[in-house]
Amino acid sequence: MEISAALTRKQELARRNWGRWGGDDERGTLNLLGPAEITAAASLVRLGEALPLAQELDRKTPTPPRRPAPAHFMHRDGGDYLRSGDPPPRAQFSDDSMLLALHTATHVDALAHVWHGEELYNGFSRETVTSTGAHRCGAETLGPIVGRGILLDVATALGADVLPVDHAVRVEDLERCLELAKLELHPADIVLIRTGWWSACAASESTFAREPGPNLDTACWLAEQDIAAVGSDNFALEVLPSGFDEFVFPVHELLLRDCGMPIFEGLALDDLAQRSIYEFMFVAAPLPIVGGTASPLNPLAVI
Amino acid sequence: MEISAALTRKQELARRNWGRWGGDDERGTLNLLGPAEITAAASLVRLGEALPLAQELDRKTPTPPRRPAPAHFMHRDGGDYLRSGDPPPRAQFSDDSMLLALHTATHVDALAHVWHGEELYNGFSRETVTSTGAHRCGAETLGPIVGRGILLDVATALGADVLPVDHAVRVEDLERCLELAKLELHPADIVLIRTGWWSACAASESTFAREPGPNLDTACWLAEQDIAAVGSDNFALEVLPSGFDEFVFPVHELLLRDCGMPIFEGLALDDLAQRSIYEFMFVAAPLPIVGGTASPLNPLAVI
Amino acid sequence: MEISAALTRKQELARRNWGRWGGDDERGTLNLLGPAEITAAASLVRLGEALPLAQELDRKTPTPPRRPAPAHFMHRDGGDYLRSGDPPPRAQFSDDSMLLALHTATHVDALAHVWHGEELYNGFSRETVTSTGAHRCGAETLGPIVGRGILLDVATALGADVLPVDHAVRVEDLERCLELAKLELHPADIVLIRTGWWSACAASESTFAREPGPNLDTACWLAEQDIAAVGSDNFALEVLPSGFDEFVFPVHELLLRDCGMPIFEGLALDDLAQRSIYEFMFVAAPLPIVGGTASPLNPLAVI
Amino acid sequence: MEISAALTRKQELARRNWGRWGGDDERGTLNLLGPAEITAAASLVRLGEALPLAQELDRKTPTPPRRPAPAHFMHRDGGDYLRSGDPPPRAQFSDDSMLLALHTATHVDALAHVWHGEELYNGFSRETVTSTGAHRCGAETLGPIVGRGILLDVATALGADVLPVDHAVRVEDLERCLELAKLELHPADIVLIRTGWWSACAASESTFAREPGPNLDTACWLAEQDIAAVGSDNFALEVLPSGFDEFVFPVHELLLRDCGMPIFEGLALDDLAQRSIYEFMFVAAPLPIVGGTASPLNPLAVI
Repeated sequence: MEISAALTRKQELARRNWGRWGGDDERGTLNLLGPAEITAAASLVRLGEALPLAQELDRKTPTPPRRPAPAHFMHRDGGDYLRSGDPPPRAQFSDDSMLLALHTATHVDALAHVWHGEELYNGFSRETVTSTGAHRCGAETLGPIVGRGILLDVATALGADVLPVDHAVRVEDLERCLELAKLELHPADIVLIRTGWWSACAASESTFAREPGPNLDTACWLAEQDIAAVGSDNFALEVLPSGFDEFVFPVHELLLRDCGMPIFEGLALDDLAQRSIYEFMFVAAPLPIVGGTASPLNPLAVI
Repeated sequence: MEISAALTRKQELARRNWGRWGGDDERGTLNLLGPAEITAAASLVRLGEALPLAQELDRKTPTPPRRPAPAHFMHRDGGDYLRSGDPPPRAQFSDDSMLLALHTATHVDALAHVWHGEELYNGFSRETVTSTGAHRCGAETLGPIVGRGILLDVATALGADVLPVDHAVRVEDLERCLELAKLELHPADIVLIRTGWWSACAASESTFAREPGPNLDTACWLAEQDIAAVGSDNFALEVLPSGFDEFVFPVHELLLRDCGMPIFEGLALDDLAQRSIYEFMFVAAPLPIVGGTASPLNPLAVI
Repeated sequence: MEISAALTRKQELARRNWGRWGGDDERGTLNLLGPAEITAAASLVRLGEALPLAQELDRKTPTPPRRPAPAHFMHRDGGDYLRSGDPPPRAQFSDDSMLLALHTATHVDALAHVWHGEELYNGFSRETVTSTGAHRCGAETLGPIVGRGILLDVATALGADVLPVDHAVRVEDLERCLELAKLELHPADIVLIRTGWWSACAASESTFAREPGPNLDTACWLAEQDIAAVGSDNFALEVLPSGFDEFVFPVHELLLRDCGMPIFEGLALDDLAQRSIYEFMFVAAPLPIVGGTASPLNPLAVI
Repeated sequence: MEISAALTRKQELARRNWGRWGGDDERGTLNLLGPAEITAAASLVRLGEALPLAQELDRKTPTPPRRPAPAHFMHRDGGDYLRSGDPPPRAQFSDDSMLLALHTATHVDALAHVWHGEELYNGFSRETVTSTGAHRCGAETLGPIVGRGILLDVATALGADVLPVDHAVRVEDLERCLELAKLELHPADIVLIRTGWWSACAASESTFAREPGPNLDTACWLAEQDIAAVGSDNFALEVLPSGFDEFVFPVHELLLRDCGMPIFEGLALDDLAQRSIYEFMFVAAPLPIVGGTASPLNPLAVI
């Protein structure tokens, strides 16, 4: 019953934001971040601190199956100047390259990442996503993401260090977080949901198949709040498995495709939680990777 | 004469900031960005716009010699769901990886990138930079970079679309920019120098061997202003060739190694220049690439 | 007229070998290399020398557009053991990785590399070639390639160091080579065509858009000889441009798709030519790259 | 006692082959494969079959720690031609790249891979192995490897499908294999040792820390037989752990550095074993990767 209710609700939100910002729009709910929202966000800066929300990126970074693990290649290093004989050149340097699966570690999903049927967000054809990249709704179309960030610390609100793996975060959980934070959710907010999962999971051998997170019903509620973006400290935002046979990632479908709402994943939210910081200027800047289906980034909470 | 004067001046700045923030410090002049600087920067936000300062990142991105060009690999795309026969699965997605030389496109140099003699910034041994990465002063040690950004639009100040390739930007050029902008430089500022070079050069086959930019004398002056960071819209900040036989990259040596000052390269500054925006909240967040000698990023001018 | 004649001839060869070795076959003309051919090839070994036919592989290797240049990454090297202080560990080693576009340098095209219409060789659907690889006719299906190799040194036969860029190698050119070599072509032979192009071109900035090589008519003749494989010392075997509007790579279509005949490209044939060696035991062993559309390799002429 | 005896024996073999083929030699024992050996090898071809000895190469290939797993990237595939609307272009193709750690799957170790003290094989300085590659004794110096191959099927000789993980293969084990095969070992032979390990281990999560294989004493014996090369079907040829505190890989040190003998690893030897084929023409052709410390390859047993 609950599942069919969620499905009905999702159906009502289908294509919710298509055409809302024009037929060519590829930024979706990021359009909600206008001058008023950005200036309001900047006015939240009082302590003068900028807290990074990205995990460290190295070869130990958990990597989803079928994707290459981050690989860091040094092209030149200090050892090249330790040779005997001739004195080393005056100028010495090091440099390097990196291979990175874009949906690894802390990243934002571009709108081209997930869809259903034949269309991406705003009706763009899935045929625009080819072997050479996402020619619509790629990472280069997202642009800067600056607005009011809200931390909803579900783990702490429920008295846990980390939510149980089968915990579907519900609307009532989020409302409880808001109460504890003495905040109200506004349209255009950027909502960060803390499950405690990342810090627990990064140390173990995660299968990427099971994690706590919002279920479809909660995602519908978030969409209805008209927020600008959502993020979490787990691998794929939503509770896995989803409980729906036919939808493997129903929350991704709803948010990315129907609502045009980008999703931050793999955030490091423990510092904010420990300091009980729930409201802040959120600043994130995707790399303009042309045709990318995601971008690694280091979002900041400026307080 | 001029050269030997610059050398003397550089000598006086040798190890300028070593020990200033403790013997273990790896952030250098970014330490200047304290609470007062961050709150002051946020107070500069009036229009409520966030302007990206990164170039687009694709296979056409100019790449220095001996480094791999950016390569974007799609692991899954829309074409995988166009096959005939069975209906496609309900959830459809795309994902991808990227190979990126870290000193390509818009990036920040970590302090481990350039040194001379046997020591990096703050006296760390060059032996700490090994085949497995920069174990001191790597990209993960930089942290968020938020402060007052100042655009010094040298090209426009000198009445050019782009500075000539052999133009060494001088202190008087920078002072002229400040006059035109009706601004004074303060300690802890983040100074962005516009040569016009990037937009001109990206379309041609650059050799990375010649470009306009500040010379050593100008870099000494910048160091003496006690700014927090410097950046430019060319490939390597400084004028090339440098005019010094024994120093291939004297400005890099001075800023990164002696002063502990990170350098932004490959910035996209045309939008700021066209709108005559010279002062702004600058926000940049290096990816915490453990042991990286640089990080790609998309710095923002929030106005 | 000539073009339409070639088209007619090609049409007659369409699907020439489909079903010839069964409906599941993915090896094509390599099936011609049976016990008799392999033992006969081995009997050609008289001098006891093995000549490599591969170019050296490094960052200077010419790379076709849109593909990454070969990149060699050292994970550990001798410099890591030169540090001062503690003695180095007893066991010292170096290791490395490589990124390689599979159609770079000396390689063999798998049958999945080129097709037309909706079908690959033997009628396999193009839908079997997905983002995860060629699930039919990939490099792992080729297996060892051992047989009688024949060098047709067209450049020398025509009195040139290198054929002109617009030279379409004709049947009469090949017949002249056979006369000079005092050899007859047999079914199941492996034919290597020397244009002189590689050594000339590798030193310049080739566009990969123009090169001498067999035209469609010549390829039809080769197919009719029922040879096992063909190779050359240029980038794409066939003369480019092909002279046909609608066929960009008509020889590839004919050989790979209609005939199931693998193609070696980028061979180093100068040593054989200089020593006037025209007949030899040819041994090539593609790497079993699952789903690969080509494999790098180092074919040998054992004499 | 046994250990100290092996150490003494190893000491006697130190620098065994340095200078034997000249001070500039980088091929080591491959020099033993002269005209007589190659023609004799070719005369072993009677059945006319070429058996591949390489494992399949894909993302499931076991990869040693700290090295990237094989990654196969499709640049273009059949799905790109399934789009609706305009008819697809006449010429359709697929192509791809691969990232490969060179000591993964079936490969040959170049002589620059392992050393001790300050010198590689033949006295070349370890300083020649830099961040840009092995400038001495790299993979491009190996050249073709053609000679008499001998399978020593230790697993079968000891009545096992796979040797126990702690089994140190001894000289008496190898002699038993020779007896069963009714063969004698000759100088210049290429010896392949079958432990059964690969097929057992590839299916599990190997740690690369423990495996059966020849110990130092056995390696000394092999070196004394003056063979041209040795290989095995495990990850690192030698028994691990080695039993020596100070030598992590004593067999590698002895063979690669002291004797200049290349080592094949990760061979697929089950087919030969099942068919009781113990003597064959062995043909292997390393890719001429300039500065590589190994090369992937697909060695053949031609019978």
